[in-house]
Amino acid sequence: TGLRITVLPGDGIGPEVVAQALAVLDAVAPEVEVDVLDRVNATTFARTGAALTDDDLARIRASDALLLGAIGDPSVRSPDYARGVLLRLRFELDLYVNQRPAVLLHARLSPLRDPARRGIDCVIVRENTEGAYTGIGGTLRKWTPHETAIDADVSTYHGVSRVIEHAFRIARREVCVVDKANAVPFGGELWQRCWREAAGRHPGIATSHLYVDVAAMTLVSDPTRFDVVVASNAHGDILSDVAAAVAGGLGAAPSANLDPATGFGLYEPVHGSAPDIAGTGVANPLGAIASLAMLLADHGHEDQAQAIQTAIRSTVDKRRCTPDLGGALTTEQAAAAVIAELA
Amino acid sequence: TGLRITVLPGDGIGPEVVAQALAVLDAVAPEVEVDVLDRVNATTFARTGAALTDDDLARIRASDALLLGAIGDPSVRSPDYARGVLLRLRFELDLYVNQRPAVLLHARLSPLRDPARRGIDCVIVRENTEGAYTGIGGTLRKWTPHETAIDADVSTYHGVSRVIEHAFRIARREVCVVDKANAVPFGGELWQRCWREAAGRHPGIATSHLYVDVAAMTLVSDPTRFDVVVASNAHGDILSDVAAAVAGGLGAAPSANLDPATGFGLYEPVHGSAPDIAGTGVANPLGAIASLAMLLADHGHEDQAQAIQTAIRSTVDKRRCTPDLGGALTTEQAAAAVIAELA
Ligand SMILES: CC(C)[C@H](C(=O)O)[C@@H](O)C(=O)O
Ligand SMILES: CC(C)[C@H](C(=O)O)[C@@H](O)C(=O)O
Repeated sequence: TGLRITVLPGDGIGPEVVAQALAVLDAVAPEVEVDVLDRVNATTFARTGAALTDDDLARIRASDALLLGAIGDPSVRSPDYARGVLLRLRFELDLYVNQRPAVLLHARLSPLRDPARRGIDCVIVRENTEGAYTGIGGTLRKWTPHETAIDADVSTYHGVSRVIEHAFRIARREVCVVDKANAVPFGGELWQRCWREAAGRHPGIATSHLYVDVAAMTLVSDPTRFDVVVASNAHGDILSDVAAAVAGGLGAAPSANLDPATGFGLYEPVHGSAPDIAGTGVANPLGAIASLAMLLADHGHEDQAQAIQTAIRSTVDKRRCTPDLGGALTTEQAAAAVIAELA
Repeated sequence: TGLRITVLPGDGIGPEVVAQALAVLDAVAPEVEVDVLDRVNATTFARTGAALTDDDLARIRASDALLLGAIGDPSVRSPDYARGVLLRLRFELDLYVNQRPAVLLHARLSPLRDPARRGIDCVIVRENTEGAYTGIGGTLRKWTPHETAIDADVSTYHGVSRVIEHAFRIARREVCVVDKANAVPFGGELWQRCWREAAGRHPGIATSHLYVDVAAMTLVSDPTRFDVVVASNAHGDILSDVAAAVAGGLGAAPSANLDPATGFGLYEPVHGSAPDIAGTGVANPLGAIASLAMLLADHGHEDQAQAIQTAIRSTVDKRRCTPDLGGALTTEQAAAAVIAELA
């Protein structure tokens, strides 16, 4: 039986870019079965308080992979919304690797002055199921001058060792492990120990360590130094956005939330729902299309994935892309340009 | 009675840059009394396990301000060292504001390609006494496959409201409040509430909010957009390093750890002890000299502070500086160039 994917368009520009990713899918692999969950969005959350139901989750589990647009709307300020959809999917499906490649598609897109520094080509591997994102904690003496809020930053040997192991498995030449062991002692010590264990298991891969502040700075000052960077949930969130900025912006950045053990993955552009540009036709579909390519590559369609990636590069080369990448095309035209290159 | 400062040279290049800052002090304000604490370093920590004693702390408290070089040495891998010196000073002296200006000294130093984006001129205000840096937490089932480490991220109304208030007080036009309220709920909610309260007290200052990942990215893609950025201890650590990179590197970046209530401050360059370049004469003294200028400005020597800042800019303009800023001078020569400009 063939590949079956669930699609969750979400909010803002999410549905716009997902529609274009599906047009590309139709061009390269029309046989893939698609199940669209279009009621999982901020409108549903505002009405029912629960955007993603247990039924939705069961449907997602029954498929091979999930393609997500973006979740988030200014009308919904509660952190329960992201927690109830995106974080719930990451946590309950145990998608412990959030893999975010940062690749400069064309020299003109680099914000950096020095041509020798421009060609960033690395992967941020972010722990995706624990760390500062657990939601564990509470508030004491709320609304008083003595209010104290505590959020637990939880690091487990199971969680840290598996994500560092994954980083070493996908590395081409080097793994840079990032933590803040000089200031955050308990998780820091565990990250350091798991790093040394994984390095011992992979003598063929070079390795280094940076504190997170230095790592963020180095992504700006010397980005081509990195191959694979592995970091906690909170650190990886920040580092992957800095890396995307250095690679020319969020518009074309893809990501894969993976459970390498089961092969299930949630694929989504790194950009958010961008409500300010929703409906204007300028949203860049390449992040969603490149996320689809990651999905296909991981699920037996390597050739189609490669073809999409080549087509993306080619449209960007020719400036047949949206304004954020220096082109003048609309969302739909930019996707059509990719499809034309595929032909 | 005149100004009395304690000086803590520390490790690596710390003593080298501090010596030059003291030469500048001697040139602008020879009457300032200086008490040097030169046994607070990694060698002492390795020998005694306690680099900063209660006596040292009493001497520091008895002075008006502290100038610090840098703390850290690869021979001392224990987080107890930074915690026992730098974090102890920040916490026990209640230096709740860590103020880090990021200013481009000369257009050639910007790593950015677009001239319109280059002139970063902002202040990162970092909470300096709580957040992820408390050291509160522990490890369960250590050394077993089920090991769990927890570090508490503690945010208090007292701590958050006072640092945001300080940000509004020093702002020229805008305060951007940074948190991760969409994923870290308890502290996030408190930051959001303290932000709205402070904004209400300062109707003349514009204000905005960014999640930390977006803030870090925007420091790269649109750095001139910022005036004052206020963030938690962990977020401010990362954002101030990214801002320093965008301002041309750590070499000239100063910082002030302040208790605005008492006026006491610990002033230190943002750079670390850089053991790799210690002893080679290439360490940039401008971070330490600019930190001294911040100290003088806060302690009744505004004119001397202004003169130092003008002299720093002038030496950088003329490339009379160390290699990291495009010059060819040694540490000592670069400081001598500043002193020559002062004359
Ligand atoms: C040495 C380390 C604990 C320290 C910090 O994170 O505060 C340093 O990076 C800084 O920014 O002053
Ligand atoms: C929406 C938010 C909770 C999320 C995160 O921090 O993980 C987003 O920033 C991301 O990086 O996917």
